[in-house]
Amino acid sequence: MPAITPLFAPPLPRGREEGEEHHQLKHTITFLPDNVSCSVDDNTNLFRAVKAAGLYVLSSCGGKGNCGKCKVIIKEGRVEGEKSRSFLSAEEAGRGYTLACLSRVKSDLVVEIPPESRMQAKHKIATGANREELLRLMKQAGGCLESRISRVYLELGAPTIDDNIADLERLKRALDRAGYHAANLHVNYMMLSKLPFVLREGAWKVTASVFSVGEVLEVLDIFPGDATETRYGAAVDIGTTTVVVYLVDMTNGRVIDMASTYNSQGKCGDDVITRIVYATERNGLQELQKLAVGNINTLLADLAEKNKVPPGMIDYLVVAGNTTMTHLFYGINPEHIREEPYIPAATFFPLIRGKSVGLQGSPQAIIYSMPNVASYVGGDISSGVLVSQIHKQDKVSLFIDIGTNGEMVLGNKEWLVTAACSAGPAFEGSGIKFGMRAMEGAIEEIEIDPKTYDVNYRVIGDVKPIGICGSGMIDALAEMYMNGVIDQKGKIREELASKRVRRGESGLEFVLAWRVESAINKEIVITEVDLDNLIRAKAAIYAGFATLLAQMGMRFGEIEKLYIAGGFGRYIDIERAITIGMLPDLPVEKFQFLGNTSIIGAYYALLCDRLRHEAEEIARRMTYVELSVSRSFMDEYLSALFLPHTNIDAFPTIKKEMARRNRLV
Amino acid sequence: MPAITPLFAPPLPRGREEGEEHHQLKHTITFLPDNVSCSVDDNTNLFRAVKAAGLYVLSSCGGKGNCGKCKVIIKEGRVEGEKSRSFLSAEEAGRGYTLACLSRVKSDLVVEIPPESRMQAKHKIATGANREELLRLMKQAGGCLESRISRVYLELGAPTIDDNIADLERLKRALDRAGYHAANLHVNYMMLSKLPFVLREGAWKVTASVFSVGEVLEVLDIFPGDATETRYGAAVDIGTTTVVVYLVDMTNGRVIDMASTYNSQGKCGDDVITRIVYATERNGLQELQKLAVGNINTLLADLAEKNKVPPGMIDYLVVAGNTTMTHLFYGINPEHIREEPYIPAATFFPLIRGKSVGLQGSPQAIIYSMPNVASYVGGDISSGVLVSQIHKQDKVSLFIDIGTNGEMVLGNKEWLVTAACSAGPAFEGSGIKFGMRAMEGAIEEIEIDPKTYDVNYRVIGDVKPIGICGSGMIDALAEMYMNGVIDQKGKIREELASKRVRRGESGLEFVLAWRVESAINKEIVITEVDLDNLIRAKAAIYAGFATLLAQMGMRFGEIEKLYIAGGFGRYIDIERAITIGMLPDLPVEKFQFLGNTSIIGAYYALLCDRLRHEAEEIARRMTYVELSVSRSFMDEYLSALFLPHTNIDAFPTIKKEMARRNRLV
Repeated sequence: MPAITPLFAPPLPRGREEGEEHHQLKHTITFLPDNVSCSVDDNTNLFRAVKAAGLYVLSSCGGKGNCGKCKVIIKEGRVEGEKSRSFLSAEEAGRGYTLACLSRVKSDLVVEIPPESRMQAKHKIATGANREELLRLMKQAGGCLESRISRVYLELGAPTIDDNIADLERLKRALDRAGYHAANLHVNYMMLSKLPFVLREGAWKVTASVFSVGEVLEVLDIFPGDATETRYGAAVDIGTTTVVVYLVDMTNGRVIDMASTYNSQGKCGDDVITRIVYATERNGLQELQKLAVGNINTLLADLAEKNKVPPGMIDYLVVAGNTTMTHLFYGINPEHIREEPYIPAATFFPLIRGKSVGLQGSPQAIIYSMPNVASYVGGDISSGVLVSQIHKQDKVSLFIDIGTNGEMVLGNKEWLVTAACSAGPAFEGSGIKFGMRAMEGAIEEIEIDPKTYDVNYRVIGDVKPIGICGSGMIDALAEMYMNGVIDQKGKIREELASKRVRRGESGLEFVLAWRVESAINKEIVITEVDLDNLIRAKAAIYAGFATLLAQMGMRFGEIEKLYIAGGFGRYIDIERAITIGMLPDLPVEKFQFLGNTSIIGAYYALLCDRLRHEAEEIARRMTYVELSVSRSFMDEYLSALFLPHTNIDAFPTIKKEMARRNRLV
Repeated sequence: MPAITPLFAPPLPRGREEGEEHHQLKHTITFLPDNVSCSVDDNTNLFRAVKAAGLYVLSSCGGKGNCGKCKVIIKEGRVEGEKSRSFLSAEEAGRGYTLACLSRVKSDLVVEIPPESRMQAKHKIATGANREELLRLMKQAGGCLESRISRVYLELGAPTIDDNIADLERLKRALDRAGYHAANLHVNYMMLSKLPFVLREGAWKVTASVFSVGEVLEVLDIFPGDATETRYGAAVDIGTTTVVVYLVDMTNGRVIDMASTYNSQGKCGDDVITRIVYATERNGLQELQKLAVGNINTLLADLAEKNKVPPGMIDYLVVAGNTTMTHLFYGINPEHIREEPYIPAATFFPLIRGKSVGLQGSPQAIIYSMPNVASYVGGDISSGVLVSQIHKQDKVSLFIDIGTNGEMVLGNKEWLVTAACSAGPAFEGSGIKFGMRAMEGAIEEIEIDPKTYDVNYRVIGDVKPIGICGSGMIDALAEMYMNGVIDQKGKIREELASKRVRRGESGLEFVLAWRVESAINKEIVITEVDLDNLIRAKAAIYAGFATLLAQMGMRFGEIEKLYIAGGFGRYIDIERAITIGMLPDLPVEKFQFLGNTSIIGAYYALLCDRLRHEAEEIARRMTYVELSVSRSFMDEYLSALFLPHTNIDAFPTIKKEMARRNRLV
């Protein structure tokens, strides 16, 4: 039995919490089930100890004691720390549960990281459309294989006493003869360092990777012999939650392979605001940059190895991410993004070299960032609009990207307005008692029997459930509402004749899965607090749409097409999302899923410089509406805090269905 | 009494010589006269130990046992190593002298670095012309204050919710409004990182340091408030032997101050060839780069402190050096420079940022390198021609720079030919028994009494002599020849009635200073080996002139003007240099000293971009003649191995004077 001695002491201030005063004392911690051990100083914060051991524990708040996700079980030994502020049930506390981030190590420990606190290995991250279709889509969007970066094979001829110009001058001459305008040739240190040796290694036959910007030609890298056929690029989506990479054969535009992972920044907080705060503390900015770049390095290395791409052969990367992710990737402090008037350091980021951000394998590669629009509308959205093509259409369409954030763009070939709603990452599990990402063990579909209130659910991976993911939450909300488990305000009807409705530690709750069904030896429930959070989130999204429309004096009915992008978006059940009033009540055929448009747009820009230009034009054309200070957004938001909406006439389909079910609204 | 146990073992191969097998054993060495101690592993090479202690010992060969300069005296303790190959006299060996580079530490030691092996603190390095005159000279050369880098004060206005563009976009907008073409704005990481904070610190009033290259505008750095009046630049001469820096006020072009030091690379070898070899070994390249940049950092820091220049206010540096020095400064491997067909990696080096080479204080500064011409004609020479203005004159002039190397340019406004002669650094003391640089204790002037053969000399610093520098060597050669101490071939007349002529350990020698006169308790002599080396050196220089002239079908008499540049050149006695046949026999009024034209030209290019262009034109126009493979150079060289020359008719003045002295030639 573990001995927990809560001291009710406030958490130590950062910078001192690793027990500077007790350096001499060391403790060994063994983490289960991985059976990984590490040695730490006395008083070390247990959340940091998990990180130090190279392990992962869920956390939405980055270890600040605000989210209650980093539950661990002390199997042996003693920790001290603050009581866990209502995040632990009495039963859990009795079983040795504690929040890692609020515990300080006071002896050797055996600590179990329970399933619900672990990142699952198997998961589904949307990597975009069908690999074979992407090239066709790019061409459909008016693109062609015309990158800014190309390779040219050159035969320089060996120097002699009579032709003894410098190596670099010889290269320039060869480029001039090959039709390149090399008068303004730029070279970088790395290239110049290796030039003399590569020229001689290749017996004066070399391949130059060249990059043209306006009148300036730059030689990025140089290879012995003919290396024109081994020319690669990468499109990268740095999402708040996931990182996706496409490895692209630049000679034919084909996506060779793709890979994805969770953004390791997750351990520093789930949402961009938490990460911005983290970035402003200690070495937070460098740490966050390192984590994101580390993810990209790992994915690229895996892809390169698997597909036999030699190091240094990736010439060009196009990266898309929201504005905060882009700042963090560049290592630029994003702190002003979260303070009114919400100003990013940059929206159009400069080209940089792989080396500058710590990219391994291809330090010489040029990195381009898809253009951002404003603090909360980033390169992922200009990328998305490029893919949706709404900026070329006569009629007005709506583009929405529901990921960790909710961004939307309304417009046509004449105008584009955009906004971001601070929906928060509720649909990704944050603030929801059993909320989790769409990975193995997550309930992703729910049906409630209208008579018995029994719950049918489907779990990702067909295993016992450990929690509920976004699509499951939408289903839960819709089913509970349509079947009268909750009222229009999301309040659970206590009088309901079902043992699934019960009073838990944080008020009324509804049992989705019984203890015997679950993988965590606990009932999986949805609480009134959860319901409230979900309704706020869906209200914010809907209010965003409504505000943008009102801004343009339009009505939902005038929207020709509604494009849904984002990893999360792929798995939404449209009809249920309409039921809860998250999406407007439009005919289902007007909705179209586009997948991960962030990376698809980056892929377009990687291959075709004209499309890259187009994305920049899109970013420039977009008018950004700051919802957080909009009076009309607040009105819309308050009206949307009902299921489906205060004004049920805006949801005729739902109204009709409720009437059919003889249920008052 | 020190116990020296010569083992006659070959020097250990590099990488093992620091005693890897005996890591456990440590010895303490105390160096006199500085009384500096350090602890080293058993078997450590004593030359490296001196470096490790932060001290300096002379060395022309970089510690390879080839020059005999690194003499030290073992006062206590035991060293092992190779016998010192004839560099030590029997007397010296008896007094505990050994060559540091051939000795391995075998016990605690007390080691004296004697005066002749030390770099003297007081010295004279030519820093160029009069400080006040430089601006006038620049204007005379057609220059004006029109640098590529400028500063602009901008008032951006604070952002609001309605004007919430990104910081970088706000800066672009302000630049656009200030008349800069900011569409193609380039920014660097460093600038972007600090931009958000500087904008807010300056309350949206800032100064940008901007750099225009063609259509591209780059913001190099940004400062809060109005910083347009604190704009500095630096001109830097990286000589093989010395490093000189001018600190320049870019607002008015004035040279605020200048400073100089010996190039610390000296400890890795005296001449460029030795340094190239050193660069190709282990971390030699990085070490050499660090040493040169370290010199510049020290000089700049001193100048900035003394003249109250805040850090980060130097926007622009122009560096001039020979081709090898430029490679080493950039950290580019120069190894192909020394192998036929003698190809440098680059002649026109790319612009780089201070940070890239390790420049402290102004990491954001742009560094431009004066254009090089070929492997042995560098940026110091294009700089020199720019200052000499021979490239604008109707009549043909000769420009010569006699420093550690001997470079020459012949030409006028229509053509320019250039060559470098491998004279070697004899005139800087290398290969000369008591040779040394022009620093305190060096005999710099010599007169020999025609009857008694007594020697009158003048010593730099008016102290007891420790050796002889270049101008002293020329005097010695000329006086010995004119007074019949040596014959036309430089052989000492043994039959001469003077006790100054004697047979020493390496053959005949002539005593310049008796033991009682000298500061080193030894006679200072000039040996037949020395004379031979000096004659070879002067012959190479003269043969260079002659070959260039022959190449153009010209005669010496057609030369309108002969410009002498270089730190060493300043102190040459023209008539005596003619006497020994180093310079052609032309009227003295045709010769003009220009001082350190390397740095003066760098200063021109720093201030005036038009003159920078002109230097590039000069470098492009120059036709390089590779003397080392020239048949005609070999012929000329052989003919010049006499005093003054095989063909005495080429030296009518000398012929006449010899006749006057009734001496046969």
